[in-house]
Amino acid sequence: MRVYNFSAGPACLPEAVLEKAQQHFVCYKESGMSVMEMSHRSADYQAIIDKAESDLRTLMRIPDNYKVLFLQGGASLQFAMVPLNIMTAHKRAYFVNTGAWSKKAIAEAKKMGQAAVVASSEDETFTYIPELSADMFSGEADYVHITQNNTIYGTRFSKLPEAGNLPLVSDMSSCILSEEINVKDYGIIYAGAQKNVGPAGVTIVIIRDDLIGKAPDSVPTMLNYATHADKGSMFNTPPTFAIYIAGLVFDYLLQNGGVAAMQSTNEKKAALLYDFLDSSSLFRGTVREADRSLMNVPFVTGDDTLDKKFIAAASAQGLVSLKGHRSVGGMRASIYNAMPMAGVQKLVEMMKEFEKNA
Amino acid sequence: MRVYNFSAGPACLPEAVLEKAQQHFVCYKESGMSVMEMSHRSADYQAIIDKAESDLRTLMRIPDNYKVLFLQGGASLQFAMVPLNIMTAHKRAYFVNTGAWSKKAIAEAKKMGQAAVVASSEDETFTYIPELSADMFSGEADYVHITQNNTIYGTRFSKLPEAGNLPLVSDMSSCILSEEINVKDYGIIYAGAQKNVGPAGVTIVIIRDDLIGKAPDSVPTMLNYATHADKGSMFNTPPTFAIYIAGLVFDYLLQNGGVAAMQSTNEKKAALLYDFLDSSSLFRGTVREADRSLMNVPFVTGDDTLDKKFIAAASAQGLVSLKGHRSVGGMRASIYNAMPMAGVQKLVEMMKEFEKNA
Repeated sequence: MRVYNFSAGPACLPEAVLEKAQQHFVCYKESGMSVMEMSHRSADYQAIIDKAESDLRTLMRIPDNYKVLFLQGGASLQFAMVPLNIMTAHKRAYFVNTGAWSKKAIAEAKKMGQAAVVASSEDETFTYIPELSADMFSGEADYVHITQNNTIYGTRFSKLPEAGNLPLVSDMSSCILSEEINVKDYGIIYAGAQKNVGPAGVTIVIIRDDLIGKAPDSVPTMLNYATHADKGSMFNTPPTFAIYIAGLVFDYLLQNGGVAAMQSTNEKKAALLYDFLDSSSLFRGTVREADRSLMNVPFVTGDDTLDKKFIAAASAQGLVSLKGHRSVGGMRASIYNAMPMAGVQKLVEMMKEFEKNA
Repeated sequence: MRVYNFSAGPACLPEAVLEKAQQHFVCYKESGMSVMEMSHRSADYQAIIDKAESDLRTLMRIPDNYKVLFLQGGASLQFAMVPLNIMTAHKRAYFVNTGAWSKKAIAEAKKMGQAAVVASSEDETFTYIPELSADMFSGEADYVHITQNNTIYGTRFSKLPEAGNLPLVSDMSSCILSEEINVKDYGIIYAGAQKNVGPAGVTIVIIRDDLIGKAPDSVPTMLNYATHADKGSMFNTPPTFAIYIAGLVFDYLLQNGGVAAMQSTNEKKAALLYDFLDSSSLFRGTVREADRSLMNVPFVTGDDTLDKKFIAAASAQGLVSLKGHRSVGGMRASIYNAMPMAGVQKLVEMMKEFEKNA
């Protein structure tokens, strides 16, 4: 029996997508083979990756002057690729430090130039998004970097930094496709797929044309965006099966109202959980109200023993992977696109019951 | 209906592995979720990756002073990672140029130091392995690099270079697990999984302990072997599903006699095809006899139109992906571990028939 999986990533996928992939797993359509066995140079596979890109472009209304790349290495490799590729003119970039992932991005950029941290919420364990003003980004720099949604701490930028003419680079690993955004506001968007898109092992990069081709020759070929942009993500063998599953998810989203419909449901799911947390006398959310993530909801009872008891009780009822990140403690419910409203409803019912008996 | 898939990679997988993965695709055992949905930090997933590593160690008799890493980016990223990590003392390494993949490895190494090409078979379109002698590797250098089996040209090192005290680094993407080797002969073995192991998107690295930790701080964290060795390939989210499938293949190999049994069958499969090529008046192999690959068998008729006709006729009979690489032309039959003897038999029968009617 399937459980409700609140894992922060890899995370739940739409059951309809899994069932479709299962059906074609040994023999894809008329090909006589699994998608995993297909040459990436075959016509069958080219059709799969082309449709994945085209559907993602439709879902996010990606303008023609942006390339879509399917890469490997996760956000962790993007932390290095971004500065290697575009921290080239001023050798300097601005960062907003909103948690563990921002810090890793900052650490990688420091290997290649100056990473200027203009604001941080570390003083309060990253439970809020710092106030930003345009003058913070008025000096000479190559770009501005943010972690749009912080998976660990459960915060989210609801308003973008006023980066002026500087390209805004956003790590959207845990919020891509969860709500409508305007791609034109960004220079580079990147996201590991394993949270809101598909399986681990494929990384989506959406990059404005003018930011491609700036990397010096010393940069490893595989870390140069131009390498992949020039070859339609086929410079070398891409993670073919992971891209296929991501493509099935894109298709599923299009069949189900696209990003607008996801956003609407995500807002309802999050509201249900946050409203309960705000009314509960046992549980409380850990993030400042204005900065709460729609995707990752950390909460605590304030009593470690009780937290553990709750996690075990939830797990016994098929509500799994609710343990919070070790740096926050307590619980975390990741409620990505693929988590149905019924899962959040069952969680809230279970929390109410637990509170009554606590 | 399943075809016989002679693709060079991604390539065919054992049908038994595909069927097992299909069965558990939506719900893995008692977990209530797909392997793709599992947190990489979960006990269920840890058991999967631990067994994959342990089975690979058994299959290849990997000594304890070697780490096994499951990485991303394919051999193409290893072309850069190897010099970034170990071309550190002398900034110089020796290369044997046996084809397109060697050349790419050389090009990446040149970004970081001196790549000394001691021998090449480029003069005869890489149809042989150059003669090597110990004195070629007697100067100061950090390592010796070879492409153990060349997927495109169909050559194979049957005797290793006498590298003396220098670590031997081998790209085994298209021959790992195809025949018995002695891991102790190598400093680093790397292989993209999509030819003889599993799906695209996971790269196996087997590295001797003393070669880990030499990378300077300027190297991106994700390209430092120490990063992954220290964290059991879990520094960031690994390509969880691809590792799972690779693990199922390892288990399948162990259940079916291990590498020794594979080697025996591979030798029989290759002999069947090469013997026919040597006796045919229409088809001929393109590689010098002593250097023929057990895995990739290029052959031609000498007539482009006839080659095309053959490829189409074979495809119509369910023998697919036989088109040769554009740089060699003609045909190429990749006959990895997962290609059954019956597939090679059917191919040879079909070639005989085609020859009779040509």
